[in-house]
Amino acid sequence: MAGSDSEQKCKIAIDAMGGDFAPENVVLGTVAALSSLKDTELFLIGKEEEIFSVLAKNNLSFSKQNIINASETIEMGESPTTALKTKPNSSIVVGAKMVKDRKADAFVSAGNTGAMMAASTLITGRIEGVGRPTIGAQLPNIFGTCSLYDVGAGKDAKAIHLLEYAIMGSIYAKEIDGISNPKVGLLSMGEEEGKGNEVANEAYDLLKNSNLNFIGNVEGRDLLTKQVDVVVCDGFVGNILLKFGESVPKLLKHLLQQTAKQNIFDALKIMLIKGTLKKALKSLDYQEHGGVPLLGINGISIIGHGSSTPKAITNMILKAKKMFDNKLVEKIQRSISDYKKG
Amino acid sequence: MAGSDSEQKCKIAIDAMGGDFAPENVVLGTVAALSSLKDTELFLIGKEEEIFSVLAKNNLSFSKQNIINASETIEMGESPTTALKTKPNSSIVVGAKMVKDRKADAFVSAGNTGAMMAASTLITGRIEGVGRPTIGAQLPNIFGTCSLYDVGAGKDAKAIHLLEYAIMGSIYAKEIDGISNPKVGLLSMGEEEGKGNEVANEAYDLLKNSNLNFIGNVEGRDLLTKQVDVVVCDGFVGNILLKFGESVPKLLKHLLQQTAKQNIFDALKIMLIKGTLKKALKSLDYQEHGGVPLLGINGISIIGHGSSTPKAITNMILKAKKMFDNKLVEKIQRSISDYKKG
Repeated sequence: MAGSDSEQKCKIAIDAMGGDFAPENVVLGTVAALSSLKDTELFLIGKEEEIFSVLAKNNLSFSKQNIINASETIEMGESPTTALKTKPNSSIVVGAKMVKDRKADAFVSAGNTGAMMAASTLITGRIEGVGRPTIGAQLPNIFGTCSLYDVGAGKDAKAIHLLEYAIMGSIYAKEIDGISNPKVGLLSMGEEEGKGNEVANEAYDLLKNSNLNFIGNVEGRDLLTKQVDVVVCDGFVGNILLKFGESVPKLLKHLLQQTAKQNIFDALKIMLIKGTLKKALKSLDYQEHGGVPLLGINGISIIGHGSSTPKAITNMILKAKKMFDNKLVEKIQRSISDYKKG
Repeated sequence: MAGSDSEQKCKIAIDAMGGDFAPENVVLGTVAALSSLKDTELFLIGKEEEIFSVLAKNNLSFSKQNIINASETIEMGESPTTALKTKPNSSIVVGAKMVKDRKADAFVSAGNTGAMMAASTLITGRIEGVGRPTIGAQLPNIFGTCSLYDVGAGKDAKAIHLLEYAIMGSIYAKEIDGISNPKVGLLSMGEEEGKGNEVANEAYDLLKNSNLNFIGNVEGRDLLTKQVDVVVCDGFVGNILLKFGESVPKLLKHLLQQTAKQNIFDALKIMLIKGTLKKALKSLDYQEHGGVPLLGINGISIIGHGSSTPKAITNMILKAKKMFDNKLVEKIQRSISDYKKG
């Protein structure tokens, strides 16, 4: 992407100020990642003195020249577009610029999701030909997992955007998840063609005529129970679905408590099973999967959950490295350009 | 609605041929309902000889003049619009006509959902001023239940339709579920105003300026975890969400089996808890709630699940009676007309 040196070495910028437990969790996760990575340079972006203080407190070392001072922080609740304008020295703006300027191949943040999406799109910039970048989420499925695009990077998507999501999602499934010929589905109200809304019906035609492994419409229930690798939908639908799914364990806990109240034997059984249930339900928890990539950006951009643990931060960095090693951005670029050429 | 006699007596038409176990389950459920209803006349619509045969087989009696012969049946998989045209003597068409002609106040069917919606809308007809009829589903919620409108009667709804759903859903919550001042939410991507797609943002304004108890945007997770009685969304979103929710127990079963495979103690615990879990999960099962009303029709229209048991049929009939007793159609009529007048 840049000079001859960076052909080999992967450079990952990390938002030290991003997340509810920043910079502590970010610094710990970054140092942990460093030890398991080869040919990789990591950069911590944020308030120098705070980063140094976490390193000192935990008796850790990290190359001084890889700490990039950013005097401002975009808080979790801030309006993304306003923050981008008023805080040019924030860690998110600085990180997105590093990727734009090819000083880094990837930028990883567990901070303000909206600001991260806006900075990646507006500062780092989109891949040529991509109308809308997209965020995917991996849902548990009885056949393994199913990736849903888009879960909220955009809304009011047009049919062509759904096709772009499918192209990008397929490449990710192939290169990162190792699925050789990913099955692509279109989220709809029924299995037959024509069962969607206007945009979905139009997207059906585009997908049918693409070179993707399109298996047709999938319904809401299919996300968890059908063998499908990539499912595309408008970000408005995907975001609502994802958050709905995340809240299921909370409802389940409540339902079990209600059942326990009615019957002492049930109560005892529920006490016994608690840990086992928790283990099984783990895969429903979005946070367990670590950060999610924003695909369609001209560089690697990974967005993490605000409550990211050090381990989640490490996983996000490892994911960025894998995306770099598999030349994900270049492959998306090529596929989109090939499609546009017809 | 009709003559002086019917001012008192409620007349409910039942599609004897509707559902996977028709006419058996329908006839059994209807006869059971009859015994617990006062001032109500029930009509079984379908193939006479089949209805008589079920009655005879089960040693049941049912007034002969209340069996309305309909020589055709719309099957579960048939295209609704084609079926309506090609099968004018089908039980669904005959039933919808009875309500249109005021020979019945309500029509109940566990048959082809699409055909039932089309027949109710096109034959019975909409309430004046209602742009789109709507189907709601009751979701379990840690505060009780939450009704979601629309779950698939329409798609590509406009903002005004979402407002109509809210008006009709509020009346249903008040009159049938006994909630005095139902809290209404708008399904969206974030809590703040402006977080929706174009249609939702426009609907926000309409809802804010209505006399409903509008509590603002609710997110996907809020459906199960927030105290909200009626949530409105486009039918495309609602249908996908509903089917997704229905498939959660299937995933959960799978996840528990996976956990059991890894550990013998977990396996034992899961064996013990099976029945208890099933009990708790019952409320996630859409079928448990019986039929759902199609609101906005100029008469009572209730659509049941294809796999309806006799008990589910009975519940659908009792629901129709309650809607009649509470003058639901008239109240919706009045509210919509008041709104349109400004």
